[in-house]
Amino acid sequence: MSSTPTAGPAADPAIEVPRGLKGVIAADTALGDVRGREGFYHYRQYSAVELAEHKSLDEVWHLFVEGELPTPAQLEAFRRRVAAVRATPLPPAVLGALPAIAAAGAAGPLDGLRTAVSLLAAAEGFAPVLDLDRATIVEQGLRVVSALPAIAAGLYRAGRGLDVVAPDPDLDWATDYLRMISGATPKPEHARAVERYLIATIDHGFNASTFTARVVASTGADVGAAMVGAIGSLSGPLHGGAPSRALDTLDAIGSPANVDAWVRPRVEAGEKMMGFGHAVYRTQDPRSELMHRTAVELGGDLVEFAEVVERRIVAILAELKPGRELYANVEFYAGVVMELAGLPREMFTPTFATSRAIGWAAHIVEQVEDGKIIRPSARYVGPPAPAPLP
Amino acid sequence: MSSTPTAGPAADPAIEVPRGLKGVIAADTALGDVRGREGFYHYRQYSAVELAEHKSLDEVWHLFVEGELPTPAQLEAFRRRVAAVRATPLPPAVLGALPAIAAAGAAGPLDGLRTAVSLLAAAEGFAPVLDLDRATIVEQGLRVVSALPAIAAGLYRAGRGLDVVAPDPDLDWATDYLRMISGATPKPEHARAVERYLIATIDHGFNASTFTARVVASTGADVGAAMVGAIGSLSGPLHGGAPSRALDTLDAIGSPANVDAWVRPRVEAGEKMMGFGHAVYRTQDPRSELMHRTAVELGGDLVEFAEVVERRIVAILAELKPGRELYANVEFYAGVVMELAGLPREMFTPTFATSRAIGWAAHIVEQVEDGKIIRPSARYVGPPAPAPLP
Repeated sequence: MSSTPTAGPAADPAIEVPRGLKGVIAADTALGDVRGREGFYHYRQYSAVELAEHKSLDEVWHLFVEGELPTPAQLEAFRRRVAAVRATPLPPAVLGALPAIAAAGAAGPLDGLRTAVSLLAAAEGFAPVLDLDRATIVEQGLRVVSALPAIAAGLYRAGRGLDVVAPDPDLDWATDYLRMISGATPKPEHARAVERYLIATIDHGFNASTFTARVVASTGADVGAAMVGAIGSLSGPLHGGAPSRALDTLDAIGSPANVDAWVRPRVEAGEKMMGFGHAVYRTQDPRSELMHRTAVELGGDLVEFAEVVERRIVAILAELKPGRELYANVEFYAGVVMELAGLPREMFTPTFATSRAIGWAAHIVEQVEDGKIIRPSARYVGPPAPAPLP
Repeated sequence: MSSTPTAGPAADPAIEVPRGLKGVIAADTALGDVRGREGFYHYRQYSAVELAEHKSLDEVWHLFVEGELPTPAQLEAFRRRVAAVRATPLPPAVLGALPAIAAAGAAGPLDGLRTAVSLLAAAEGFAPVLDLDRATIVEQGLRVVSALPAIAAGLYRAGRGLDVVAPDPDLDWATDYLRMISGATPKPEHARAVERYLIATIDHGFNASTFTARVVASTGADVGAAMVGAIGSLSGPLHGGAPSRALDTLDAIGSPANVDAWVRPRVEAGEKMMGFGHAVYRTQDPRSELMHRTAVELGGDLVEFAEVVERRIVAILAELKPGRELYANVEFYAGVVMELAGLPREMFTPTFATSRAIGWAAHIVEQVEDGKIIRPSARYVGPPAPAPLP
């Protein structure tokens, strides 16, 4: 039974690429793209910013699930379909565990969401995607996406000893989400501002969490495993999904007169300015501009202060880091919008996860259809093997 | 505030590579490698098979954590160190949740482990790795790895209404693990056989679960997020970590006289034979040979039957799929070994996760030291954008 070792190199040639797989095409997608130089990103063939400004979340969700914007009749049918899923109560095992998950504590805002989604997938008996047809995978994605706002809001309230508010599928997503958090019906302009944010953050190229969802799904694992992996990557500080940090910066600066004195020494010391700069955009982040306009529509002192801070930080960065093209990213005005809409600050990142999950679900379906496991190689750089055991 | 769109292509050139990133170097590692053509794999500079045959799990664990095999004094110190971690009870939030997690049900054997590890990381307050020093990340890895056998065994017993058995750190890992599952001290030869399996499955190149752990860790997320992502990928059928499936095949065949009649029509119909073939090995899988020898040492009718089945399946595959070089993989005799050692079949895959977690933990540390986010690109293949909204 012993093998004959073959001399020479391994069968598969090692392919050298930039560190972190930067620029490497890991998959094909019809879901969207980011054009960093143009400051433009799109969902399928449509400008994501235009979608956020002119369409409802349900319409854009339909675009991701079905591949096209719905006709009025299709929209009506889709709304009935997702209303039915949203109306389905969380499994008792999940609902019952929310207080314990919230009480377990956490070091990050997505820890509880990660645990609850893992439990949800188990309680729903999600089988490996490899054993499922496309329609079932789509339905499971709808289920997780529909459950996420209820889970996020439920964890928030359970952690504060408040009663969990059941979803009301007659309300639109954003209105119901804000209601499930606060217990009160939000103002329509607040719900619409949050809905814009949700639409604008569904997808954004091959970000790390989306890539994680596809890697896990490519093994044939269940939709829950892929979603939980994606939530894990989204929780990474380098992913960049913490609009609350930019708002913390505004708090720390405190007043317009204090901007330069606060910012300049920190930039000179090499600190990163939270809410500024992006891995892909080399010009204005179109999401930031959208959120800026949205914040201006909501109005108030915070917006004016944020505008002053943005102008000064961009100017100081241009002066001290010339050629780096550092602008406000989505976090900056998104934090302002969510604050003005009355979202508790600790819910900013979970809110991002609820919308990005629509993108993850669509990428999971696409990856399963691709069918090829994503499994790169590593280069061994340790001492030559085999060495004799000591 | 509006940007000036720049005409032309995106800034970063797209790098074309084989589908699934096959052969693409995604990272450097000093932890080990697989040489598929030679049928050889190693942990750092040592043959993994030799380590499994001649060293204890604690020694090999030390090799992964500290970079070298321990001297007797180092081994003694390391044993005290991990004994202290193993003796630390699971947080009450996790221990208390095991019955609920087990009762929630699951479609796969790793669903409960995924949820419990997610909860453990939250309860322990694991901060993002980006904010931690190396020593803390190493300690968190030790904590998860040490907790996994207790969690896996606890979920098994809780799911059957049995009392959870607390760990006894005076016992070696494998002995204690089998005891926490069955409630009784195992035979030494059974514990040693399982220990060999555990050592042999700690690491195996850039498998999909290890890659997932590194992708999540590369975002700066916490050790729990990376571990949970890895468990998710391990649960994928294409990852190949289900030794119970190969054993199910033995059951289905039933008797030596039945092998050809069972195997031949299935291979002719294009079915995969569970426990045969591997993505990397083009010759005997050295883990299979090790597990074969280990099974022979344990002895019995099942081993002899497995040998007959292996010989016939390899011969039929060679005849019907010439040139494909399909041999028994680690799953085949690993299943036999675990069955002979008295492990319940539903614990085979969780057992695999407990040992592979040693590898994940070391890869997480290595990835954090690397410091670069793993974020490839995708190729947009949908309709040209932007199209006007309908």
